[in-house]
Amino acid sequence: MQAAQSLLEFAARSGVRACFANPGTSEMHLVAALDSAPAIRPVLCLFEGIATGAADGYGRMLRQPALTLLHLGPGLANGIANLHNAYRARTPILSLIGDHATYHRANDPPLASDIAALAQPVSKWLKTAATAEDLVALAAEGLDAARRDGPAALILPADIAWSEVAPRAVSVTTPPPADASWTKCIDDAARSLGPTAVILLGGRFLSSRACAAAERVAARTGAQVFVETFPTRMERGAGRARLKRLPYLSEMAVALLAHAQTIVLAGAAEPVAFFALPDRATRLAPPTTRFIELVKPGGETEAALEALAEAVGAKTGPISGAELLAPLPNTDARLDPMGFAQVIAATLPHNAIVSDESNTLGLYAFDAAAGAPPHDWLTLTGGSIGQGLPLATGAAIACPDRRVLALEADGSALYTIQALWTQAREGLNVTNVILNNRAYAILKLEMMRTGVSAQTEAAKELFDLDRPSIDFTSLAAGFGVRGERVSTLHGLAGALRRSYSISGPTLIEAMF
Amino acid sequence: MQAAQSLLEFAARSGVRACFANPGTSEMHLVAALDSAPAIRPVLCLFEGIATGAADGYGRMLRQPALTLLHLGPGLANGIANLHNAYRARTPILSLIGDHATYHRANDPPLASDIAALAQPVSKWLKTAATAEDLVALAAEGLDAARRDGPAALILPADIAWSEVAPRAVSVTTPPPADASWTKCIDDAARSLGPTAVILLGGRFLSSRACAAAERVAARTGAQVFVETFPTRMERGAGRARLKRLPYLSEMAVALLAHAQTIVLAGAAEPVAFFALPDRATRLAPPTTRFIELVKPGGETEAALEALAEAVGAKTGPISGAELLAPLPNTDARLDPMGFAQVIAATLPHNAIVSDESNTLGLYAFDAAAGAPPHDWLTLTGGSIGQGLPLATGAAIACPDRRVLALEADGSALYTIQALWTQAREGLNVTNVILNNRAYAILKLEMMRTGVSAQTEAAKELFDLDRPSIDFTSLAAGFGVRGERVSTLHGLAGALRRSYSISGPTLIEAMF
Repeated sequence: MQAAQSLLEFAARSGVRACFANPGTSEMHLVAALDSAPAIRPVLCLFEGIATGAADGYGRMLRQPALTLLHLGPGLANGIANLHNAYRARTPILSLIGDHATYHRANDPPLASDIAALAQPVSKWLKTAATAEDLVALAAEGLDAARRDGPAALILPADIAWSEVAPRAVSVTTPPPADASWTKCIDDAARSLGPTAVILLGGRFLSSRACAAAERVAARTGAQVFVETFPTRMERGAGRARLKRLPYLSEMAVALLAHAQTIVLAGAAEPVAFFALPDRATRLAPPTTRFIELVKPGGETEAALEALAEAVGAKTGPISGAELLAPLPNTDARLDPMGFAQVIAATLPHNAIVSDESNTLGLYAFDAAAGAPPHDWLTLTGGSIGQGLPLATGAAIACPDRRVLALEADGSALYTIQALWTQAREGLNVTNVILNNRAYAILKLEMMRTGVSAQTEAAKELFDLDRPSIDFTSLAAGFGVRGERVSTLHGLAGALRRSYSISGPTLIEAMF
Repeated sequence: MQAAQSLLEFAARSGVRACFANPGTSEMHLVAALDSAPAIRPVLCLFEGIATGAADGYGRMLRQPALTLLHLGPGLANGIANLHNAYRARTPILSLIGDHATYHRANDPPLASDIAALAQPVSKWLKTAATAEDLVALAAEGLDAARRDGPAALILPADIAWSEVAPRAVSVTTPPPADASWTKCIDDAARSLGPTAVILLGGRFLSSRACAAAERVAARTGAQVFVETFPTRMERGAGRARLKRLPYLSEMAVALLAHAQTIVLAGAAEPVAFFALPDRATRLAPPTTRFIELVKPGGETEAALEALAEAVGAKTGPISGAELLAPLPNTDARLDPMGFAQVIAATLPHNAIVSDESNTLGLYAFDAAAGAPPHDWLTLTGGSIGQGLPLATGAAIACPDRRVLALEADGSALYTIQALWTQAREGLNVTNVILNNRAYAILKLEMMRTGVSAQTEAAKELFDLDRPSIDFTSLAAGFGVRGERVSTLHGLAGALRRSYSISGPTLIEAMF
């Protein structure tokens, strides 16, 4: 059989079920080999940033790697921004990047470039296939690395993909036992907790049980709990723990952590500013704070937090916070950020998945939705915009029985708007809400924070999106997705409910 | 003054007139400093691939570097695919890539990554600013490198951009004299020319004079002339030399070069296959061919070719080929590639600029347009799709008095469709023709060439764009650009003439 076929058959046996692709000539044998691995669903994306972002959403939800299929250096490059977010999220993904045939590289054909250099910054594991015989073993190694650490990338020269190999039995590896090194510092952490302590939660998946345990620890000890600013995935909603995220604005985070003599890190890294600004702190905790790393960044937190709860005598206890919201008032008031958040929360369907790239306008949505029916919340882990629509697309492929809600700022939406087409093609249950304020509002805020007036001529030229206005419903129609425009709270609620009642994707353009 | 200001004031003094931008927080001081350099026009692009592709089109036409303004690693990454094309074209561009403040890097904030690793594969020159004092000298070096070799990149940490520096006089350098090393091999080349010789033309700019000289040499000596498969920019049309490009399909190129005992390279590299395919040649000339490098790849060809013409006794002579086309028949026939090409050629306005990413359907357009009024032709130099609309956008900024015609395949258009908005915003005279066959037709062809049937299930899933059909006129409307759909030759001709008669951008969706 061809090596490409052996690779994909092995991936299917290992549990891979989706391949987000935009292939080219150097990947033709991989495309052909997909027929030998019918368990793997090929999903065409119009741009590689859609493919990698979708693989991120898929991996966050299923906690199993999807494949991406990318075409040489430029195809990879188009996917790097969303691989960066997945790298920060540590999402399991195995990218297959086609390369020129090994003997053609020295000819330096037009599409040649240093693929490994481009892939390294966004790969927890990166190898180039050197022989057809070792390809399956390499794929096994890459899939293991992806499950363990996050995005992995395998560069596959075309002549290796098309080589004939003898079928070879490579065992699917079983996952290693969960890291339990936290047992060593449970006592230290338990002793340190009190009113001057903070627990900072992170990791690839903040389960409702992990969050509940952290909340019980806080209730018992007087410590405060925060979730890292941009969690990968968090189970929450009515009946679950009501946890706050550490604010994005560093000055607010500094104030909240000012009392922290101890910070227990559970899957999160030491909190730092998103950007340095003149004369402001970049490390957000006081310099005297003692850090206890209970679970390393990205690690599994549930068992550690439940053990910690038991250690402080809070093995069980009531959930403090979130309750179901009151019914939504029927109001024709124009959209505003707080009202928007309330409508989102009040209409959210049970078991929804929220892909949140709503930036400034969506500021209140997370807190408001704490009382909405149980749901998962996914955020912009790496700060690389253009994540939200692809992430929603992949999450919907992963979880066809759940409604996905993408809360998407206009400027960010325009990075990867082509995701709508894949949603239409695959009939995905995604409700895309575009928060349209006709500006990169975050930049106006950031420019003031850097100490520069946001009223310079160039800033006006570069921060506003209103000349001409962008019509997102037309864009949606162009990609085969139903769209409607709303400008009142009542209109938004109606559009959301209509969207949730039908299958397939919709777009709601929320005019602020 | 702030270092950012010193940098942009110097760039303006050096002749920089445009900055294609999608900035973020780490570039705020550069945005503010643009007000100090009003000669530099800030052009907002909705995605960095638009910014870099536009800088490529701008640089190809004006032969002067524009700036791009990119946000950290992910912003750069989004621009890499079109920088790859510019790298292959050797277009003068200076990219300014904002980075985190130097003292913040060790904190590994979410948006941090190895920017230099990402930039290296697409940069002829790459440096990271280390001090505010040296920033202007570094910019001078980068601009020189861009003019001489092609895309240059300067990584600028935020704290260096916002540092105060004393104004410092750095001289604008004068360009070095043109490389005249070709004088040494003129005699050798002249002696070698005859019916078994081929002249292969390339370089950053194939002027009509360079092409005419090559044609006179061919007429005198019996040698054949080809232009490299994907020339950066070529002046051509009625009254100018009618030169053929070396075909993209390697089997055709091999046949055309089979007789070549000598190939004189004038600005082009030795011809190689775009992709390796099983059992096919990757070097297109016979192994016994002798190569004479008259002008190195990317070099200036005009003086060398005129000297060569003089050396073979062809200093003057008639232009052989291209004549004005006969009037277009008024036909309601449905669009087909040959008819399409004739309509494009017959309606092309005087002095147009054609950005050609028409791929399979546009195959005949180049040859047909040889008889159209004089124009420039720009091609997909690096094979990284999604170039055409951004390239057209930048060419239109560079040459506001000329009509730009983008011939754009549907699949490629969808990579960077956001370029339409910048065209609308800036009121650019671009006619965007989308060749819509609802497929990645090139992949079907390539799959057959690789020896695999294009009828596999996965291939059907991954090569077709017809489920759902994409409505490009809706997409255009969404971005503020007038659009219309045509399906006959007559309809296309009318739409083109309407488009050429009004100012501002239009989109014509040509249904095949």
